[in-house]
Formats: sequence, C-alpha cells, structure tokens
Amino acid sequence: MIEIIKADGTAEQNYMKLLKSRSTQVSKTVTESVSKILEDVREQGDRALLAYTEKFDGKLPKFIEVPREEINDALSEADEDYVNALLNAIENISDFHNRQKQQSFINPKQNGVILGQRIRGLKRVGIYVPGGTAAYPSSVLMNAVPAKIAGVEEIVMVTPPLSDGTANPDILVAAALCGVDRVFLLGGAQAVAALAYGTESVPKVDKIVGPGNIYVATAKKLLYGTVDIDMIAGPSEILILADETAPASYVAADLMSQAEHDVLASAILVTTSEKLAKETVKELERQVKELSRKEIIERSLRDFGAVFVCEQVDYAVELANEFAPEHLEVMMQNPMEYIGRLDNAGSVFLGNYAPEPLGDYFAGPNHVLPTSGTARFFSPLSVDAFIKKSSYIYYTEDALREAHDDIVLLANKEGLTAHANSIIVRYQD
Amino acid sequence: MIEIIKADGTAEQNYMKLLKSRSTQVSKTVTESVSKILEDVREQGDRALLAYTEKFDGKLPKFIEVPREEINDALSEADEDYVNALLNAIENISDFHNRQKQQSFINPKQNGVILGQRIRGLKRVGIYVPGGTAAYPSSVLMNAVPAKIAGVEEIVMVTPPLSDGTANPDILVAAALCGVDRVFLLGGAQAVAALAYGTESVPKVDKIVGPGNIYVATAKKLLYGTVDIDMIAGPSEILILADETAPASYVAADLMSQAEHDVLASAILVTTSEKLAKETVKELERQVKELSRKEIIERSLRDFGAVFVCEQVDYAVELANEFAPEHLEVMMQNPMEYIGRLDNAGSVFLGNYAPEPLGDYFAGPNHVLPTSGTARFFSPLSVDAFIKKSSYIYYTEDALREAHDDIVLLANKEGLTAHANSIIVRYQD
Repeated sequence: MIEIIKADGTAEQNYMKLLKSRSTQVSKTVTESVSKILEDVREQGDRALLAYTEKFDGKLPKFIEVPREEINDALSEADEDYVNALLNAIENISDFHNRQKQQSFINPKQNGVILGQRIRGLKRVGIYVPGGTAAYPSSVLMNAVPAKIAGVEEIVMVTPPLSDGTANPDILVAAALCGVDRVFLLGGAQAVAALAYGTESVPKVDKIVGPGNIYVATAKKLLYGTVDIDMIAGPSEILILADETAPASYVAADLMSQAEHDVLASAILVTTSEKLAKETVKELERQVKELSRKEIIERSLRDFGAVFVCEQVDYAVELANEFAPEHLEVMMQNPMEYIGRLDNAGSVFLGNYAPEPLGDYFAGPNHVLPTSGTARFFSPLSVDAFIKKSSYIYYTEDALREAHDDIVLLANKEGLTAHANSIIVRYQD
Repeated sequence: MIEIIKADGTAEQNYMKLLKSRSTQVSKTVTESVSKILEDVREQGDRALLAYTEKFDGKLPKFIEVPREEINDALSEADEDYVNALLNAIENISDFHNRQKQQSFINPKQNGVILGQRIRGLKRVGIYVPGGTAAYPSSVLMNAVPAKIAGVEEIVMVTPPLSDGTANPDILVAAALCGVDRVFLLGGAQAVAALAYGTESVPKVDKIVGPGNIYVATAKKLLYGTVDIDMIAGPSEILILADETAPASYVAADLMSQAEHDVLASAILVTTSEKLAKETVKELERQVKELSRKEIIERSLRDFGAVFVCEQVDYAVELANEFAPEHLEVMMQNPMEYIGRLDNAGSVFLGNYAPEPLGDYFAGPNHVLPTSGTARFFSPLSVDAFIKKSSYIYYTEDALREAHDDIVLLANKEGLTAHANSIIVRYQD
C-alpha cells in the first residue's frame, strides 16, 4: 500500500517531481466556460446569476439569501455538543489570531514631520464554502474568525444549496457562531462572479477566500485584481519526521488522516528508524480496514505516499525542508530542538500528542496553509490577509526645504524633471 | 490640455470606466513567446539564458555577474552628493520600515500546551531593475531596504546591461548602499526565469519583486506559484483633493509630476473651488513649457487627466474613496481631519508641503503602491512582503485527551473518519 524507500538522493528527487506533477493544468475548456460565466454575471447581474444557478444546481433554491430567522433557527435547533465543540474551537482560533493583529503606527518627528501607517480591516469579504461532502464547518471558522478579528465590516458567505434547495444547517450554525453577516445559497463560478462584481442581490466584496472546485478556483484566478483572493490551494500534504521513539500506530493514523482527503493527497514518513518504517506499514494495513474512506486512503498512499528511511537525522531534516510540506509532524525525541532547523512548513506539529487533525479543527492556528512546496515563501492564512495598509506623510515648509536638494538631485538623476519641479516650485519666490 | 468637469454623478463614473480601460490585456503573442523563454531557461539553464541575452540585448555583456570590485569601484567613484542623497533616503526608508517588523510569538499555556508563530525573512529574493531610462535607483531602495529589514538572507539583483555591455553605475551605487548581495546583468523574461528556476550561474530565489515591461510582468505572472511575486503594477495615478486654500502652482506641479511617468498615467484634481480649478489649468500651461517631458505630460493630461469641481466637500471625499488612487494628496485646510474619512489610497500626502515626489524618493514610506483602484484591498509594499510565517503546535497527552471528544465530533461531522481515528488511536489502550 505504501513503499519503503532507502533515501539515496535520487529516489527523493524523483518523488518530489512526482508530487509536483499533481498540480493539474486547468483545461482551456474550463477557462473558457468560466470566462463566459463571469462576463454574463458582470453584464446581466441577477438575471445571469439565477439562470446559471438553475442550470448547474438543477433548480432555484427557496431563496437566494438565507433569511436571518433561518440562520437563528438552525442555531437553536443544533445539537448542544456540536455547538459547544464549535465554541471551544472558535475560542482557541480567536485567541491565536488575536495575537496576529497589527496596529496602526504614527511617527511624529521633532521638526513637525509626521509619518504613519494606518491598518484597517477590509470593508467586505466573501467566503466561499463548497457544497456536498466538502461542506466543512471548520473551513467557515478558519476563514471567518481571522476576518472578524481583522476588523472586516461585513462578511458575506456563499454556499451551494442542498439538493432540496435549503441550506446545510451545520454550515449555518458555524456561520452564525462566527458572526458571518449574510449567507447566499449560490455556488460555482457564478457565485464568485457575483461577489466580485456585485449584482442587485449580492453585494460586491473586496476579497474572496475559501476552497472550491476547479471552476471556483479558476474564477478566483481570473478575477484576481478585480478583487483580492487567497491562495489557490493544491492537493493536501503531510510529512512526518520521526525517530525510533515514535509509536507506529500514531504515525500510521496521522498519515491516513491526510491521505483520506482525496486521491491526490500525499502522506510521507521520513524516519531514521527502519523498524518504525516497517511497523508503520503494518499499522496502516491494520487500521485502514476500519475507516470509511478506505479506498481513497489506499489509492493516495499507493500513488503519492512514501516512507523514506534516512541514515542521518541531519539528512532527514534537510529532506523535510526540501519538501516544504503543508503539514509537518515532528515525532522525534525532544521535538522542540528541531524548531530552529525546520525552515519550510505551513504548520509544525510537535511531539506525539499533536496529530494534524488537532490543528485542522481545534488548536487555534489556521488550517489554510501553503501547499505543493510553496511554504518556502507563502504563509498560513492569517489576520494579515484581511487588512489593508495606507501610508501617511505630512511635511512642514521647513522640513521639505531641508530635503529640497536631495530630492531634486535624485529626481534629475532619473530624468524626471517634473518630479524635481514639484519641489522647486514651492521655493521659487 | 486638461478638462474641467462639473461633478454630476455621471461624468465621474464614465471617467472611472475610462481609467479602468487602461489596464491593457496581454496579447496572446506575448504570453506565448514568454512561455517559450521560461521553458527554455528551465530546461537548458545558462545556455538558453545566454542565447536569449545575446538575442534581445544585442550582445553578451562583459560578464553575467558583476564582480564585487566593480560594485565597489562604482561606489568609490560616485558623486558625493548623490551618495549622500541616497544615504539620507535610505535612513528615512529604514526608519519607517523598521516599524513594520513583526515578531515571532509564543503562547505557552498552563496545561503544557504551547502555540507559536515564527516569522522569518525569506531566504533569497530577486529584485528586477529595468534598463534604459526606467533604471531608477529609487526603485532599488524601495525594494531592497524592506527585504533587508525583513531578514532576507540574500538579495540578488538583475538588470539589463547598458548598450556598451557594462552595468549602470548609478544602479550599482544604490545596490551597494542597500546591501544587495549579487548583481547580474540580465533583463527581460529570461532574467525572471533564471531567478525562478535557477541556472548554473544564477541562484534560484523565493520571491521576485520590482517593475518591468510587459515581458517581465508576464513572466512574473506565469511563474507565480513557482516563486512568490509582488503586485503587477498598472499605470501610475495621482488624485489631489484640494480646496480654495491650495496654491494652484503647487497643485499643477504635482499633477505633472505624475503625468510625466508615461502616456497612460492619470492625474486628477478633485476640488470644491472653481477658482482653483481654473488657476490650476493656467499653471499647467505655464509650467509645462519648461519641462523636458512636455510631450508625455500633455498627452497623459489630455487623455487621462481631469479636474472635477464638486459642490460639497463630502462628495469630493466620497469621490476620492471611489477612485482609490495610488497617490492621494490632501491640500485642504486642516488636512489631518480627513485621515479618518479617506478609506482607499496607497499613500496619502497631507498639506501643502508633501508633494508626491517627496514620497517617491525620500520621506520613508514605500513608493511601490497599489494602482488602478486596487487600494480598496491591496497595500503598499512593506516588510510583510518579505517574510514567511509558520505555526507551531505542541500538546501534552492530557491536553489532547481533554480536546478528544470535540475533535472527534467535528471530524465525524465532516465525514473524515481517519481524522477522528488519529485522535482515538492515541487513547485506545
């Protein structure tokens, strides 16, 4: 079900190439049909939006915007344990993300000069929540909580209707608890277009976040610049760095928690212990039997899973850095000692009691993370994604006079004489 | 040369549409030829890089990488006033950007749980500096200083050679003073490809920043995801908000300092004073005669310049927010009072002695700013652009046990039983 490979330099490189090949090219057909949808919604507003909704979702939902009382009803009818689990998660997520909040600053100088940077939440943000089996309440939390903390004035959610034309109540409960302001029963590229351009019913937003299928992702890509978007996520990944102290049953369970996402997911164990490698494979075979997503797990482990056995710890660490995985578990003795050496990972899970699902649902850090090796330069979703900055410059007549010669010299150096003139004209008389 | 328009709701909307139409579509030919260049450099490395350099730059420069002694020589031979002007600017830019630096945080809890977020500079960053008349030393400063402050380990600069095959000494001086580590005499899409993929001579970087022509911009767009990139800038813009207290000669000079950039630049005056509007037009006609870039200025003012006269201050402010300009000058009585009402602008220049070129060269805030109305959601270039974050999660056996039921419930709710299993397996015995 998964291959044990002796790390020899070549095998790892080939495997990394295999992983990169998962990033599927968007077909021309998809791009063209999405472009057409965007154009229609931009030009015709609600009319096109409703037509596409009827076409792709089979029929129109009872209402496009979920009335406030339906949301409140969903909340009051929800299972108490579910509500409490969400509230506990929201508390942890809020606590962590509150620490990310940046403050505006001002720098007034003795000569009267004032410089500043103002930080504000975006005015309005749209969150896309997929329908069907990929309708994840945790995804609502991980997008809405940081937006709220950033100071976003209005959070608008779009999600496709269930087959009976109503809203998924689990999603409504999560939305209500996170302070989502409005919920629309819309999905696909048409929902993204409505958020970007605005229609008679749907307000125009400044940024669109959240996962979605290839049509949603393509729509977001094409609309980047008209609105801001979050990262386009690739297939999910976990890399576990483990030595002989790691329990094989934990390692196996955590690999599978990633592998179950979809058949393109990748789960990798990098270990210095051949014994652990072998035991993990046995544990995978034992545990997978009981799991509902057995077929997906077996396929993704076979196609994109791997167990690398390294002779040296240093090389194992180097390999982890080269993979730059979305999720990195460190089940080594004294895991803390590795923090300073692990350069590239979205989220790092330390020790034997920090399985990746703890981070997906509960611990507090965001679960929207850079994939496909982009942790080399991208970061987890954070409050920073929902703010905008502006700079402020105030100068006095005397202060600008003092800077006069430097600015004029630099402007002339660049051949921009009208730049120089804007300084000179103020001191001509 | 510039039209005075009575703001009536319709004229402004039409003008905004005109401005948006400037964002030129990239032709299929450009995309195809850039794609070919990227592919060749990726596959053949230096061989393709040198071939394209010879083809597009006419001949190969004396050296691909500028030797350290050439950089030092440029610095020691430079004009003292130029060096001092750069040093003064660097001091101001450093002072401002130092205040943007975020710190890693750790949040250790009573129950042994530790959460954290680590902030680090990117490992290696590439700065593109255009050649010819667009070789701006200020652009080196505005990109390199924040990268340095972010903690970037290595800054690599690429810039096309002069026609004699040597490096532009002004650019070398700026690079030396900002701590740029390596300089390569390369330009165009091939230089961008070399930075993204790495070749035998050019090291692979994590992020590419800096302005460039349509080939450079297209290369950056296509490589986004392989590396990170900065914003793709559109044509430059200024909007001046002014009342009857603003000196027309200053307003005219500042409009022209923007208009001289290129024929697509836009310069707008929004004023409550018809008198100022008329006097500004006279001043434009008077001052433009002396300026070296007269033709460009006249053309961009004619095509994309406008003077809007508004009856109400509130409407003038609303208009400024709707334009969301790259540069916003506020030449109103008591300019500070407007800060809280100005929602969308990259950089705000307050009062009669803060002309836009002060910000371009000297004051300290970054001059790389969101264009084409994207200040609604994008921010000025900052230290944040050169960092990456990682989250850290450490849990104890007891702490995870306490979270056990919540996580299992949420995982099952999402149908992800292998997620639930990774928690359950740890407490089975």
